[in-house]
Amino acid sequence: MPEVLVISRHAQRFAELIEARQLPGLEAHYCEQSEEALQHCDGAEILFGAPDCIAPVLAKCPRLRWVQSSWAGIKPLLECQRRDYRLTGVKDIFGPPMSEYVLAWLLGLERQLVQHATARHWDDTTKPGLAGKTIGIMGTGSIGSHVAGTCKAFGINTRGLNSDGRQQAGFDACFPLSRIAEFATNLDYLVALLPDTSATDNLLDAELLSHLKPGAIVINGGRANCIVEGDLVAALESGQLGHAVLDVMRQEPLPDEHPLWAVKNLHITSHTAAPTRVESIIEIFCDNYHRYIAGEELHYPIDFDRGY
Amino acid sequence: MPEVLVISRHAQRFAELIEARQLPGLEAHYCEQSEEALQHCDGAEILFGAPDCIAPVLAKCPRLRWVQSSWAGIKPLLECQRRDYRLTGVKDIFGPPMSEYVLAWLLGLERQLVQHATARHWDDTTKPGLAGKTIGIMGTGSIGSHVAGTCKAFGINTRGLNSDGRQQAGFDACFPLSRIAEFATNLDYLVALLPDTSATDNLLDAELLSHLKPGAIVINGGRANCIVEGDLVAALESGQLGHAVLDVMRQEPLPDEHPLWAVKNLHITSHTAAPTRVESIIEIFCDNYHRYIAGEELHYPIDFDRGY
Repeated sequence: MPEVLVISRHAQRFAELIEARQLPGLEAHYCEQSEEALQHCDGAEILFGAPDCIAPVLAKCPRLRWVQSSWAGIKPLLECQRRDYRLTGVKDIFGPPMSEYVLAWLLGLERQLVQHATARHWDDTTKPGLAGKTIGIMGTGSIGSHVAGTCKAFGINTRGLNSDGRQQAGFDACFPLSRIAEFATNLDYLVALLPDTSATDNLLDAELLSHLKPGAIVINGGRANCIVEGDLVAALESGQLGHAVLDVMRQEPLPDEHPLWAVKNLHITSHTAAPTRVESIIEIFCDNYHRYIAGEELHYPIDFDRGY
Repeated sequence: MPEVLVISRHAQRFAELIEARQLPGLEAHYCEQSEEALQHCDGAEILFGAPDCIAPVLAKCPRLRWVQSSWAGIKPLLECQRRDYRLTGVKDIFGPPMSEYVLAWLLGLERQLVQHATARHWDDTTKPGLAGKTIGIMGTGSIGSHVAGTCKAFGINTRGLNSDGRQQAGFDACFPLSRIAEFATNLDYLVALLPDTSATDNLLDAELLSHLKPGAIVINGGRANCIVEGDLVAALESGQLGHAVLDVMRQEPLPDEHPLWAVKNLHITSHTAAPTRVESIIEIFCDNYHRYIAGEELHYPIDFDRGY
């Protein structure tokens, strides 16, 4: 039976949940850090855990056949030279929490939640809600598609942006990257849910923001590389943007003294948009483990070249 | 052709929208206040407008046959003795804005929107979201049913409460008023969307609140009569409730010096939950006007005895 090496700062919780499943023939070592894992590299055929913990030991596992990532962001592994193994990711579990995140902010901003939450006198002025507005979602995979479907439940029109404009569930229309200006024209809301690849670098720049409806809301729940921070701040300061919500930053954690904290109408949510439920990750690993020992196709395989 | 008397503080906007529709044979007078309307009462066969503006002239319209309310809250008309006319209300237009309101608060509180909106340093602690939680909605008409359906989109379990426990769309289960304790047991969220009737008076009292899960969230988007304010405040202060959100108060506008403004974790939203879109109201009136002159059934008739 294959030896499994688990590396995660949640190693103890992983161990409890995995051992409770009584996987057939499982022999696993659980480590919280890469250094601790080194002693178990020789025998490991399967690695399971956080990409940034696995990357440092990747070259040191001669028997390696399969890596199951416990996170959506797999860039540390893609940046390693080694590619002679199967890499699987986690998908279909971030749609619901990301929908919560995006709708929390759209509803919160449009329905003036902060003002009402701290109100000390009667004020019955209202502004229009979400119904009839138009959202553009960059990234139409399982997460973007889930968010789009949730937006439809609120009567929001949905546009998607992807590489070739292929139609995806939840979207009224999808645009290819070559028609990004048309995609962005007159959007009330722009949401980025993109993977970190060279194709997504700096996509949200002054040019793109200039196409949005004045006072639009921008939300980034994906990766930080797509945002040109200076352009975003300028658009907020000029009023071209009403609000921006950033879950991810090029530097994390963002230091207390960083000037972005002080930008008006910029909200920084400290990488909490789609928290990973440990139970869901373990479910994916155990299901794929059964498939692996049965010689079946694994779920959520990553294509090293595409990067997702 | 029937003479129409419109009384609303939005009379001018109503006039623009109605006249643009060129209703067949329409002869209408538009007044902003009851006093101004008195001179037109003699000929009025149809009254259209705000119940509190119509009530004072109701007895003074000898030819009256039909009243179309421009609001959901029709109590001022139900309290008049006169009942020899057809009364129609407005329905099916408050579901979407009420869903926005309820979800804005559930998402905002669970996803810690206020903290994030005002954050000045990195904090990536998270708490579980809405998926898997259980909501109880008191009132399962068109508004409650819409809110329940929207909750389902977020993976929330939905219980409804109505007079006889009849099943309604959007709800996993509906309970009759006689089983209200069972309905409330272990709820994460309790939302009241009830009409103001004697059957709903003081339903939300200490006894009912004691059945909820500790730290539950209570939202009242209906009418104020169902809340025992003292019990609600006590439950907030003891921690039995995590948060309460009240859109409606027994006294409106709530004066600045009222002690409720200062209660921790109590949020008062100044009767903004489901703002009426004038266009939707006019649509209902014009449709019913066509039906009236054609001798057809009117939409949204009110039963004087049931009160809705």
